[in-house]
Amino acid sequence: MTDSDADGSDERPVVYELADECTETALETGEYYHATVNGVVEYGVFVDLSDALSGLLHESEIPEDESYDVGDELVVELVEIRENGDLSFSTVDFEEFETVEREFEYDVADVENFDERVGDDVHVEGEVVQVKQTGGPTIFHVRDETGTVPCTAFVEAGVRAYPDIEVDDLVHVDGEVERREGSLQVEAQNIEVLKDGQAEDLRARLEAATEARAEPPELDPLIDWPAMEELYPELREVARFLRRTVLEGRPIRMRHHADGDGMCASVPVQLALEKFIDATHEDPDATRHLLRRLPSKAPYYEMEDATRDLNFSLEDQARHGQKLPLLLMLDNGSTEEDTPAYRTLSHYDIPIVVVDHHHPDPEAVEPLVDAHVNPYTHGEDYRITTGMMCVELARLVAPELDDELDHVPAVAGLADRSKADAMSDYLELAREAGYDEEFLQQISEALDYEAFMLRYDAGRELINDVLNVGDVDETRHRELVEFLADRADQDVEEQLDAAMSHVESERVASGANLYKIDLENYAHRFTYPAPGKTTGEIHDRKVVETGEPVITIGYGPDFAVLRSDGVRLDIPKMVSDLNDEFPGAGVSGGGHLVVGSIRFVKGMREEVLDALVEKMADAEIDEELHSAPTR
Amino acid sequence: MTDSDADGSDERPVVYELADECTETALETGEYYHATVNGVVEYGVFVDLSDALSGLLHESEIPEDESYDVGDELVVELVEIRENGDLSFSTVDFEEFETVEREFEYDVADVENFDERVGDDVHVEGEVVQVKQTGGPTIFHVRDETGTVPCTAFVEAGVRAYPDIEVDDLVHVDGEVERREGSLQVEAQNIEVLKDGQAEDLRARLEAATEARAEPPELDPLIDWPAMEELYPELREVARFLRRTVLEGRPIRMRHHADGDGMCASVPVQLALEKFIDATHEDPDATRHLLRRLPSKAPYYEMEDATRDLNFSLEDQARHGQKLPLLLMLDNGSTEEDTPAYRTLSHYDIPIVVVDHHHPDPEAVEPLVDAHVNPYTHGEDYRITTGMMCVELARLVAPELDDELDHVPAVAGLADRSKADAMSDYLELAREAGYDEEFLQQISEALDYEAFMLRYDAGRELINDVLNVGDVDETRHRELVEFLADRADQDVEEQLDAAMSHVESERVASGANLYKIDLENYAHRFTYPAPGKTTGEIHDRKVVETGEPVITIGYGPDFAVLRSDGVRLDIPKMVSDLNDEFPGAGVSGGGHLVVGSIRFVKGMREEVLDALVEKMADAEIDEELHSAPTR
Amino acid sequence: MTDSDADGSDERPVVYELADECTETALETGEYYHATVNGVVEYGVFVDLSDALSGLLHESEIPEDESYDVGDELVVELVEIRENGDLSFSTVDFEEFETVEREFEYDVADVENFDERVGDDVHVEGEVVQVKQTGGPTIFHVRDETGTVPCTAFVEAGVRAYPDIEVDDLVHVDGEVERREGSLQVEAQNIEVLKDGQAEDLRARLEAATEARAEPPELDPLIDWPAMEELYPELREVARFLRRTVLEGRPIRMRHHADGDGMCASVPVQLALEKFIDATHEDPDATRHLLRRLPSKAPYYEMEDATRDLNFSLEDQARHGQKLPLLLMLDNGSTEEDTPAYRTLSHYDIPIVVVDHHHPDPEAVEPLVDAHVNPYTHGEDYRITTGMMCVELARLVAPELDDELDHVPAVAGLADRSKADAMSDYLELAREAGYDEEFLQQISEALDYEAFMLRYDAGRELINDVLNVGDVDETRHRELVEFLADRADQDVEEQLDAAMSHVESERVASGANLYKIDLENYAHRFTYPAPGKTTGEIHDRKVVETGEPVITIGYGPDFAVLRSDGVRLDIPKMVSDLNDEFPGAGVSGGGHLVVGSIRFVKGMREEVLDALVEKMADAEIDEELHSAPTR
Repeated sequence: MTDSDADGSDERPVVYELADECTETALETGEYYHATVNGVVEYGVFVDLSDALSGLLHESEIPEDESYDVGDELVVELVEIRENGDLSFSTVDFEEFETVEREFEYDVADVENFDERVGDDVHVEGEVVQVKQTGGPTIFHVRDETGTVPCTAFVEAGVRAYPDIEVDDLVHVDGEVERREGSLQVEAQNIEVLKDGQAEDLRARLEAATEARAEPPELDPLIDWPAMEELYPELREVARFLRRTVLEGRPIRMRHHADGDGMCASVPVQLALEKFIDATHEDPDATRHLLRRLPSKAPYYEMEDATRDLNFSLEDQARHGQKLPLLLMLDNGSTEEDTPAYRTLSHYDIPIVVVDHHHPDPEAVEPLVDAHVNPYTHGEDYRITTGMMCVELARLVAPELDDELDHVPAVAGLADRSKADAMSDYLELAREAGYDEEFLQQISEALDYEAFMLRYDAGRELINDVLNVGDVDETRHRELVEFLADRADQDVEEQLDAAMSHVESERVASGANLYKIDLENYAHRFTYPAPGKTTGEIHDRKVVETGEPVITIGYGPDFAVLRSDGVRLDIPKMVSDLNDEFPGAGVSGGGHLVVGSIRFVKGMREEVLDALVEKMADAEIDEELHSAPTR
Repeated sequence: MTDSDADGSDERPVVYELADECTETALETGEYYHATVNGVVEYGVFVDLSDALSGLLHESEIPEDESYDVGDELVVELVEIRENGDLSFSTVDFEEFETVEREFEYDVADVENFDERVGDDVHVEGEVVQVKQTGGPTIFHVRDETGTVPCTAFVEAGVRAYPDIEVDDLVHVDGEVERREGSLQVEAQNIEVLKDGQAEDLRARLEAATEARAEPPELDPLIDWPAMEELYPELREVARFLRRTVLEGRPIRMRHHADGDGMCASVPVQLALEKFIDATHEDPDATRHLLRRLPSKAPYYEMEDATRDLNFSLEDQARHGQKLPLLLMLDNGSTEEDTPAYRTLSHYDIPIVVVDHHHPDPEAVEPLVDAHVNPYTHGEDYRITTGMMCVELARLVAPELDDELDHVPAVAGLADRSKADAMSDYLELAREAGYDEEFLQQISEALDYEAFMLRYDAGRELINDVLNVGDVDETRHRELVEFLADRADQDVEEQLDAAMSHVESERVASGANLYKIDLENYAHRFTYPAPGKTTGEIHDRKVVETGEPVITIGYGPDFAVLRSDGVRLDIPKMVSDLNDEFPGAGVSGGGHLVVGSIRFVKGMREEVLDALVEKMADAEIDEELHSAPTR
Repeated sequence: MTDSDADGSDERPVVYELADECTETALETGEYYHATVNGVVEYGVFVDLSDALSGLLHESEIPEDESYDVGDELVVELVEIRENGDLSFSTVDFEEFETVEREFEYDVADVENFDERVGDDVHVEGEVVQVKQTGGPTIFHVRDETGTVPCTAFVEAGVRAYPDIEVDDLVHVDGEVERREGSLQVEAQNIEVLKDGQAEDLRARLEAATEARAEPPELDPLIDWPAMEELYPELREVARFLRRTVLEGRPIRMRHHADGDGMCASVPVQLALEKFIDATHEDPDATRHLLRRLPSKAPYYEMEDATRDLNFSLEDQARHGQKLPLLLMLDNGSTEEDTPAYRTLSHYDIPIVVVDHHHPDPEAVEPLVDAHVNPYTHGEDYRITTGMMCVELARLVAPELDDELDHVPAVAGLADRSKADAMSDYLELAREAGYDEEFLQQISEALDYEAFMLRYDAGRELINDVLNVGDVDETRHRELVEFLADRADQDVEEQLDAAMSHVESERVASGANLYKIDLENYAHRFTYPAPGKTTGEIHDRKVVETGEPVITIGYGPDFAVLRSDGVRLDIPKMVSDLNDEFPGAGVSGGGHLVVGSIRFVKGMREEVLDALVEKMADAEIDEELHSAPTR
């Protein structure tokens, strides 16, 4: 009606070229648009403005001398948007005009609010974190700044929708929020990869949101301890890394040493991660899919375990479209022996984080991992147990855990016989939480016993009951711990009953007492306690009995466990010397100062053990040194 | 209109106070009700009688001098219930009246009839037996006097509905019966815990119904045998306990000795329980969730198995909201060696039932279990095999099994070489069912062989085929048994071919023949037959060969298996004496009269075996005694 | 109206008796039908022609003197089919007529087109290949000439619908095509077993279709090699058998030797079968249900593995109604040691197919299996490796794989040290695909290493990455192979470092060098490389070192691995002689010319080994003979 409006101005009129996706929200009456004829009827022509927008140009609006065919392009003015959504246009005939492209604009919705938007058509912009092909639709898990939501798309049963869209792509999803068996999802009408500009913008927004949400809370360590203070920045960094991993929808696979300290390390972190996953994922099964805790039988990350972990992760990726996991090594993982396994994983997108307090080989390990926290790298030692560090780590991941874990560092310290000065503070903290030292000791023994009985099984509920972490019946916890500790004690007694009378002793040149026990012949096999612990128990009794420097060797057909109190052992050097002396003995092993283990071929046992004893006879007495836990 | 009605009577009028849940069924025109104003409009006020009942008090019914505000309480008379359900009231103005509370009354529906009530709104009163949190709704499994039905409740995806309602609570569920993928369930509009009076009433009804349904049928044992008659009341009691366990929705975890008699015991009970579960649960997957049969590798309930069972059960409880299971020990479980495992479970709500025929330690076991059936506690012995008892038990759980099991006691007896007089009756019973003794013997050998090959696996279908229990192809059963028995026989022959020439013999002081075989050096390892059976086979041949009293010792590096015919061995005393003589040998073990096994540390084998032989040389000859099966 | 039409003819009029299932398609106006009165109303009577067809006989059409009661039978003429489907009839009164039965005729739909027929009522004729009882409906998987589709039928939750219909029955399903969570299925209104004539007809059509679809493509082997040409017809036959097995909905369980050649054999066949299953089954999960690849730890098919396979298959049959599987043995399965396991399976409907290149016992094996391909049966030998044969087999199953496998035969040949002349052609083929020999060698070592690390796990994704088969990242493949080959190499070096100095040597009578290594005492146990490979590596070094005939014996406590180069060993004869000389030694084992292994009881090791060496001293020198791979 008003095609004169623009003529009078001294600027060229603007004609909009609508993007294909544009809907009614992109229209305003009185504006001009590029249009294409899509149908010619008796009473006029139908024109398209975009995929979704078309309307009638009535014959009365068409100059008599003009006629259109399908496909013709023209400029129209939008005269009216009727109540029923029909559009009517008039023609315009500009000599000159300026064409302006109009992108489809939409309000981007926040995933965290979708429970209030069921039934609404929404637009989500986010990153694809998982693409799961089901027997029916394809499910794209899309993460925005506020959460992650599954978006379903269907072409044909079991056929991949949008085959070009993959994990890590940044997309725009247009669809309806629905509740399916109670879970929220978006039934996608359209998913498309964002173009460069939009993608960069979204990437920046996501990164900023992730950074903010991954930031651990400001906390003080549970006790005032300079040694822990020094490690705190690194633990914060690990907490940030883990929180970010969760936010990015990457699974976490936790491997831990299967003993008391390993449990005290891994169980709190497991609980904290579960809480953080629950708080940040819409999918109620996310915890189950994103977190797995696995005890390691060996004291290092064996190739077989790594192969199994990798295989399992690749199957998950193939079957459920999940990202490959982050590997979190706790109370294990700092040594050269772990590196072949790390190297295997390095060919895949699997970040590795290690928190350990065993004597490390940082030069070998650190190039292969994304983070490595170990007290030795700060001039401290095993006395800061992994459990102590990981309770702090757990609090940084989920601060709401806080005082629920007050007794755990003390258990960890007792389990690994930490001589840290801070032990008294930890014991005091536990006492305030209602735990006396004797009972804490019993917890540590019960954990060790159950770790043996469970073997490859994490035993989540049972270990929670023993450690009293999570939602636990207090009375059961108390009774169970007492029973298990007592049981463990009886088994140790039975083992030592058989073994003690077969312990051989000699006083060596340095003046230390050296004890030897043939575990193959004088200890029960395949029962609790295992050879390492059996040796440790014998050693401890001898230390108490003599009050003097003690070295204890427990040996089997092809291995020996070494423990010392008050004698400085240089085990790596011994191993290297033994290999020089007996090239056909295949000696390997390691350890540090007061604890270690070596392996050799069975047929060379006698030669190796004799030489070993000789070397120990010359080892330097150092009253400061006390046995750290063996593995 | 008629507020004069009540005035004329000489009693105070009754005004009803309706419970919040009351619906139209609680109303009658002409009655008086306490009401609360919930809205004031031009033409009157709206009043509430309960959560669901409200109606209009028209201005014409309100005295001119009266005015109401929201929240005011008054007494109204119900004038009319219109067709559309609208209620209209008039005011009354009593000086005195009596208030009577009216509970919401509803017809309680029976779960067993729900297949005819799809689409109806129903009321269920029952006990919560499982609370499963899904990714969508929470599912409460509710048991009434007639069955168990899943009731779904939804607040938010994956969020626990009615978090205060837990397993064992008595509840009233109001909801609609629906069929979901074919299964019946109730979509709950409301679930609430019953108040004291109602709860007591329901508890009594449930208990009475459970008691009636748990009652085993009146049956006679398959054969006329006083010894079995004596055990029958206890087996009935166990049957009642198991039936009650099923009715209460508690899972059953069956552990059994992995040999012929153990199979003959556990397979019939498994089948009977499956039938009973099917008959009493609406959920077609109930059998899979409520029953699990597991062979035990060791001849007692190992701590590791108990730990695994407990861990598994706790995970089921955490993930599926199931009750903790009942543990049913069959052909295992009567000895002191089982008690550490029982003690572990005792900290949890896990009832334990034992049916065994191995020589028991009742004083140690019975305080820890809920039922213990063992012929020795009635002056009988191993000759009543567990298989014989459990066929009766199975019939008491599911009488429809009846003659399907007629051949099983004979197989059990042959498997454990029972010398019971009743064997001839059992063989006759089997003969009538079409089984001659030779073939029964083959079944027992095939079972033993398959138990070895399956290791930790129950092998449900395969064992059913071998034992011909359940829905089995008769021809296949026959052929399979013959093949497997033959195969087992060949393996035994091969083992004895190697071993027999290395058997050492001597005639001891008592006149008995003593045979010794070094199994580590002269038998194949890790193959069928295992050391216990190998020893037994050698022993049996020597008994036949000599026709005199025989003692056989099969020994490995740290164990010895003992068998005797015609010589009375006091194995517990031998173990105790050996421990006194060799404090560092770690001797343990047990057995009874003619069968046993001991363990020791490898390095003391020679001393222990020599002393053992000496003790056996003095053992008393008793022609009555024949070898019972070893484990 | 026109009941005179037929009267004028000289033949008896035809009156149709409609089958119960007939619908409107069976009608034509003017025809005569047998009808039954089902209702009498004021204005006439209603008559039934079939279950679905009934209509009005108006009173005006009924002779005045005639009256009908419900149940009366009469002949009617169809006057009109109204637009709304109502039928109207007139009466006829024939003295004589011929009755012709009219079967229900329907258009049988093709399963392959069901994605275009959602919402339509269709008729399917096919064979039942699986009957799965769910908690809700029963699902019948029905296969027609074009595909397989699930058909659901419901009576009551978890109750078997049509209990008489079983796997292998030929049925007619009438129902509606629907899409359920994206998958196509038929909701059956009716399923019935076809009668003899129809069944025969369908059986013939199915058979013809299956035969056509099972026919492998016409292909030439990858290289021009007469030896392979000779095996080609048998491989085609196996391909046809496997394709038919897939078409018939029978699962395939693949067992393969867990080494390099076994991987090169099984992985291509797995991939090919996956592609063929995907192309022929509607159910998108079919691949997962129908195919399983399992490495065998032992070098033959152990009874324990067979028992586990059988148990697993029977559970699948019981739980999911699947057919029992076909067993496909690859690079294993040709020897007498496999027969006990085959015999166990022979009692069940489990076809067995073997493709192997180890020295076979055709007389023992072939009567027990459905197909057996082995180069020795054609006068060829191990030099045609199983991997070479199976690459051809895979191409015959899924020709689209073609050049994706070009490098695999060369890897297989290197893995088993094939001395085939064709190796140069295979190496050339691989070179053209971008693989040089050194790298192919590394792949073979990496496969062997991963086979050890994965143990019982197939490791699908990981092995695909190593072998570069399927959808693999090329760079990762290259890096991973190099890393793993290097790792394997280091482990071998470490093992030989310990072992080499303990190798004992002597020059025997024949002039050959004989080497002996005590693996129990001078090799690490339970690590890579295992005893067989350790022996092989020592042997290979000695062959290179001496350039003369070499025999190597690696022995443990109860076994010995034998390898020879240039010396002809008759291992079966040695075993038989040893058994004669030492009846209590339990010697068993086997092998062929240059490779073998024997077992014996531990206590007779010295005697057996000494005698073995003596026998070898006399073995004939034959420069032609080179070591084949041991197992």
